[in-house]
Amino acid sequence: MAVGLTPPTHLLPIQGVRLSAVAAGIHYRGHADLALIDISPGARMAAAFTRNACCAAPVVVAKRHLASRTPRFLLVNAGNANAGMGEIGMQDALSCCRAVAELTGCDSGEVLPFSTGVIGQRLPTDRIIGALPQALGHLDADGWRAAAAAIMTTDTIPKGVSRTVVIDGKPIHITGIVKGAGMIRPDMATMLAFLATDVSASQGLLNDVLRETIAVSFNRITVDGDTSTNDACVLIATGRSGVFVEPGNAEASAQLQAAISDVMVKLAQAIVRDAEGATKFITITVRGAASVDEARRTAFTIAHSPLVKTACFASDPNWGRILAAVGRAGLAQLAIDQVEIFLDEVCVARQGAVALDYTEAAGRQVMTKPEITIGIDLHRGSNAFHVWTSDLSYDYIRINAEYRS
Amino acid sequence: MAVGLTPPTHLLPIQGVRLSAVAAGIHYRGHADLALIDISPGARMAAAFTRNACCAAPVVVAKRHLASRTPRFLLVNAGNANAGMGEIGMQDALSCCRAVAELTGCDSGEVLPFSTGVIGQRLPTDRIIGALPQALGHLDADGWRAAAAAIMTTDTIPKGVSRTVVIDGKPIHITGIVKGAGMIRPDMATMLAFLATDVSASQGLLNDVLRETIAVSFNRITVDGDTSTNDACVLIATGRSGVFVEPGNAEASAQLQAAISDVMVKLAQAIVRDAEGATKFITITVRGAASVDEARRTAFTIAHSPLVKTACFASDPNWGRILAAVGRAGLAQLAIDQVEIFLDEVCVARQGAVALDYTEAAGRQVMTKPEITIGIDLHRGSNAFHVWTSDLSYDYIRINAEYRS
Repeated sequence: MAVGLTPPTHLLPIQGVRLSAVAAGIHYRGHADLALIDISPGARMAAAFTRNACCAAPVVVAKRHLASRTPRFLLVNAGNANAGMGEIGMQDALSCCRAVAELTGCDSGEVLPFSTGVIGQRLPTDRIIGALPQALGHLDADGWRAAAAAIMTTDTIPKGVSRTVVIDGKPIHITGIVKGAGMIRPDMATMLAFLATDVSASQGLLNDVLRETIAVSFNRITVDGDTSTNDACVLIATGRSGVFVEPGNAEASAQLQAAISDVMVKLAQAIVRDAEGATKFITITVRGAASVDEARRTAFTIAHSPLVKTACFASDPNWGRILAAVGRAGLAQLAIDQVEIFLDEVCVARQGAVALDYTEAAGRQVMTKPEITIGIDLHRGSNAFHVWTSDLSYDYIRINAEYRS
Repeated sequence: MAVGLTPPTHLLPIQGVRLSAVAAGIHYRGHADLALIDISPGARMAAAFTRNACCAAPVVVAKRHLASRTPRFLLVNAGNANAGMGEIGMQDALSCCRAVAELTGCDSGEVLPFSTGVIGQRLPTDRIIGALPQALGHLDADGWRAAAAAIMTTDTIPKGVSRTVVIDGKPIHITGIVKGAGMIRPDMATMLAFLATDVSASQGLLNDVLRETIAVSFNRITVDGDTSTNDACVLIATGRSGVFVEPGNAEASAQLQAAISDVMVKLAQAIVRDAEGATKFITITVRGAASVDEARRTAFTIAHSPLVKTACFASDPNWGRILAAVGRAGLAQLAIDQVEIFLDEVCVARQGAVALDYTEAAGRQVMTKPEITIGIDLHRGSNAFHVWTSDLSYDYIRINAEYRS
């Protein structure tokens, strides 16, 4: 029951990238759970990984491999995170990389492993390695949608976005896929995102674009405040369009960043729309803050409040819970009698108290919508921040209580 | 369905304190929702209030009144928090104080108001004031249990604890009552706690004891991470036992603090045991930390994790979620390969990975118990911290989605 989200109808192929998806039987599922991404030589890649100190073995291996050369293959499995397994987990991740290398003739250091799923169970390397010949045999430039489906865990809908933009008079293409529905919060989450563009760009520019676009997309979403051990976001530039974005070309750089940002924001929002048990897509905007940091802190405090989230689930305009969350965001010398709270365009609280013209009926009308904006004006500065989150429902409990069974 | 909690069978009267409970019809309930506490002259009082910047009108009034003199009456209503109401809320709180003063001949500054319940609805002062004569007529030294029931909101069980200890060869008595079941986290919560002892103590000692005992009790519990606008904890010393604890008497001071701490811890645990939707009482202990602060941060990160809490609800030994929570607690240079995780006495993870002798059956056996201890050893120092929390269940959602209806 994703909120305002449908599967992608068509994802544009990106020259220089081929993908396949196969059923390796990694967990209990009878469908594809292993994706292989083949990247042509000459591409560049930027990547960001979880900051969780308990990061999974594949994250350690991927970071190490990426530091020495540009990858040729990304191997992604769902159903098992290969996390919390110590040295055995490292060996298992490396075994899979070696198997890809042996079958393709590349170096095992050119293979990056990615895993998502249950923590603390041994990765079934035999099944993964056994499925590799089939995966290699089905590599296809049109494999994006199948790969998006193969990397799902508690996701209910495969998630992908494509864009074509014109840079220097020539069309360039961007396609991205993402998975993730729980354990979502800033600094990445149980999410894996793979984006590719056919543009050519320097490594420095690619790194900058990834950092800037993550800041306005994946680091703006939260489902339950839990970060994962396995999160990763990869941006590949194949260069096959013949369009080279020179670092000195400010206009082209800005166009590229805007286009990638557009794809990333759509992917990030797709995660929230498909959040575990979500019935609402909630945008929280804080303005009038003394600093961006305090706007950010206020927005996330509201977004993480179980009481605000259950009120949204109940379509209950219980703005007192929003006010209480603002009050505990830790803002120095907050003048509560300056705070305004809006539900969409309806002002529910002004000067820290219920607005005189507010009616419960008006508030409830907003709250019954599937997409809600909670707006806060702190009236103590000119900084703003917004985040996206979901509500907290019975189904969130059911999904997370039953996930392993 | 409180966990391991039954109503108090008998609460000891404290000489110098009388209480009454009446039904004022403040919200939708057909039972007592207004408590009045009468404190004899000569008593001293220490109090702590919420740090939420959006604190309710009664908190502002109570702090102001307490600053100038020792209170004679505490007026406590459930069902309406009188929060988020701006100037009208202040006037309403003051009206109630004035009404008590007029009926009793005390000064209105000697009356402290306390409110708990829904935020953002006007306090029905007429009903409260109308019920005051009845409340004054029923003041009783044996009224503790009735008062404990009258201040409940989403609580399912009235909560109270009494202790008798011998100081300087003479018995002194302590009785405390508390309410609170949701919006619970450190720095107080939607909780109101009223404790009284018949000891005599200086104001300085009383303040010290309150601060120290809150630190090991109410600031160690969390249900959902939300702090309230109305929290308060009051400690009254009537002096009627004839036992004076002199500030210089280290042994007597320590005995008094230990006894009050014992009552406070039991009351704090009672809140968690009766937490909204709770089916488990969970103790989280972190040891081997480089500092108390990092032990505290780790403990609360685990306690606040919705994924850990839903795993506890499901009796699922999903220790990967615990490991992931440790990993995101923000500890500098955490060596994950040193971390040990225990479920009660069962070691599930050693050196950051699943313990070789661990079996899922052993983990599940612990998790099916109603009371569980999650133990973490960081192996990087000698500091420890523990907190108490509850699980996250369907009923938490139901209670908070339906609370206003």
